[in-house]
Amino acid sequence: MPVIVVAPDSYKGSLSAQAVACAMEAGIRRALPDVAIHRFPMADGGEGTVDAVLAARSGEVRQAEVADALLGRREARFALLEHEGRRSAVIEVAGIVGLPDAPGVVAQRSSRGVGELLRHCLDLGIRQVMVGLGGSSTSDGGAGVLAALGVRLLDAGGGEIAPTLAGLERLDRLDFSGLDPRLAGCDIILLADVDNPLCGEHGTTTVFGPQKGVAAADVGRYDGWIAGLARHADSWAGQAVSTMPGAGAAGGMGYALRLLGARIERGAAMICQLQGMDSAIRAADWVLTGEGRSDAQTLRGKAPYEVARRAHAAGKPVSLLSGAVRPADLALLAPHFSGCFSIIPEPMALEDAIEHAEVLAANAAEQLARLRFSALHF
Amino acid sequence: MPVIVVAPDSYKGSLSAQAVACAMEAGIRRALPDVAIHRFPMADGGEGTVDAVLAARSGEVRQAEVADALLGRREARFALLEHEGRRSAVIEVAGIVGLPDAPGVVAQRSSRGVGELLRHCLDLGIRQVMVGLGGSSTSDGGAGVLAALGVRLLDAGGGEIAPTLAGLERLDRLDFSGLDPRLAGCDIILLADVDNPLCGEHGTTTVFGPQKGVAAADVGRYDGWIAGLARHADSWAGQAVSTMPGAGAAGGMGYALRLLGARIERGAAMICQLQGMDSAIRAADWVLTGEGRSDAQTLRGKAPYEVARRAHAAGKPVSLLSGAVRPADLALLAPHFSGCFSIIPEPMALEDAIEHAEVLAANAAEQLARLRFSALHF
Repeated sequence: MPVIVVAPDSYKGSLSAQAVACAMEAGIRRALPDVAIHRFPMADGGEGTVDAVLAARSGEVRQAEVADALLGRREARFALLEHEGRRSAVIEVAGIVGLPDAPGVVAQRSSRGVGELLRHCLDLGIRQVMVGLGGSSTSDGGAGVLAALGVRLLDAGGGEIAPTLAGLERLDRLDFSGLDPRLAGCDIILLADVDNPLCGEHGTTTVFGPQKGVAAADVGRYDGWIAGLARHADSWAGQAVSTMPGAGAAGGMGYALRLLGARIERGAAMICQLQGMDSAIRAADWVLTGEGRSDAQTLRGKAPYEVARRAHAAGKPVSLLSGAVRPADLALLAPHFSGCFSIIPEPMALEDAIEHAEVLAANAAEQLARLRFSALHF
Repeated sequence: MPVIVVAPDSYKGSLSAQAVACAMEAGIRRALPDVAIHRFPMADGGEGTVDAVLAARSGEVRQAEVADALLGRREARFALLEHEGRRSAVIEVAGIVGLPDAPGVVAQRSSRGVGELLRHCLDLGIRQVMVGLGGSSTSDGGAGVLAALGVRLLDAGGGEIAPTLAGLERLDRLDFSGLDPRLAGCDIILLADVDNPLCGEHGTTTVFGPQKGVAAADVGRYDGWIAGLARHADSWAGQAVSTMPGAGAAGGMGYALRLLGARIERGAAMICQLQGMDSAIRAADWVLTGEGRSDAQTLRGKAPYEVARRAHAAGKPVSLLSGAVRPADLALLAPHFSGCFSIIPEPMALEDAIEHAEVLAANAAEQLARLRFSALHF
């Protein structure tokens, strides 16, 4: 009886990774009723990161009250893991200051809630925190994170400014003297899939600002405010952290956290590792991954590519089943998979595909299993 | 190195069976450059029947001038086959009085050209003729076929009527004395996929008339005229041939030809047999079939079902790759195939799928081959 690993990312806008994995499993079971299937819902550091980690290994879901993007209060979930007596946490910024339905305007939003959750983890005695950076609505250069962890952002009169993008207009200096000393002993790992620096033409405001609501006319001004923050903070750090890859992740939270000693990892790779996917792949006959829409970007470290990389290393066939596969990019994708497939069974509108994605994914996975294993089960 | 049989029907309205088979082969070769691929473009007795037979076995294309549907003149193609010294012909009514862009109105159309081509075959000394019945534009009860082969259709004054549906209104009696005597020694095999009788609520006028242009108000009247023909002819035959299955095929040509001793076969089955597909399937590792749109009707003797039946008999896996697979019918189709797949890679409109069908079919076949044979070739 074959052993199968299903490790899809979410079909964004339609199904969570967990829902896709369950649909794939249900479909495969129609073809192969007694098959062993191991589900690893994937994520890349964005929304679903906490759930992805917890779906594949034991751990606790915890909650804490932190600031939301407009500095109101909200509950945020995180995962508490324990491995050989050492506790670590997985948090995701999308669950604190996430982009869908983000309130207010970007200039008024703050990343402070993320810093507060980090401090909460320190309070719990946790000394390793993985931070999923994808899907943020903020673009404050990480000012909120710094403020929450004890850095004072001061104006020319010595008053504290709001830890928001708008607040940075009046920034005169930073005071790191109150920085939480426990950070020195804490391993912070950033899960990101962008390499952008903090400022300039490839910086967070220019590249990601517009999708968070920054008007074209404001890009230069906002980028300048964040550059002002970086001048003070790079000077404190003694190196140009703002130019490092990933400083521009999550509206500059990448910068703030790298300033405080965080290292950066590919989100999908780290999640595979946290889930312990490799040993499951080594025991598998076939691996099935997927995502909402596959194209050339998939090969830049997205979850299906990471799953494929691990399957190849183990010498196992891995297939792609996505909501859509961009025809023009198929020739780039094809060499990496034992088949790239879409769930779409007939000409249909995007809205219909989204509405019926669960049924279509199960149907398609069933057909793939029939083709792959028909020598075993017709 | 695997051996693969590709045996698709046409993607109706988009690609000929030959074009689909070539696209599938091209796609599979991208995955498996050195594979042995045997192409069997399929048909079911309709348009493409002559080409399907000739694509898979040696034979000649011949032409003859015959009547078109409005009794003008046209060239008609047919296949001349030779097997163990015996010659046979394959003709298709779609190539003589076919439906797309049929001229005039249905009442004025005649099947006479089909009878003329049969007579031409008799002139050539051929004593076995296979007649693909699908896709006709006529609904004359086979009056034209009878007239071409020597039956006189007479009115009350003894004058010959036009061998059309409209002519039958004045039919008074039939004179079979001039029937071509060579028919007695000729084996005529009808390739059809309908079981309808000639007249009545399941008859040719009621069921197929509307798609040939019969107005709803005329159905009863036209059906009555054809019933008049059947009374005379059944009486001559000494049995109710008009009620036999398939008498209603091709606007009643099924009736006329059964009157003259023809037997009826499933078109797709006969074409598989003529192509010698079984021995190729026995030597194959995988069979790939398909059609424009697969649904529950596929299981009623359509080409992909016939191909699947033969693959099953040989114990070989057979997969379906169609333009579309109706989701609601997938559960019916799935048990018959090692996977039912569509060429559609993303949400798209039908017109786009039709326009790009060749590329999409090649792409999809490539991915299927990668999944099926990835242990051999990644």
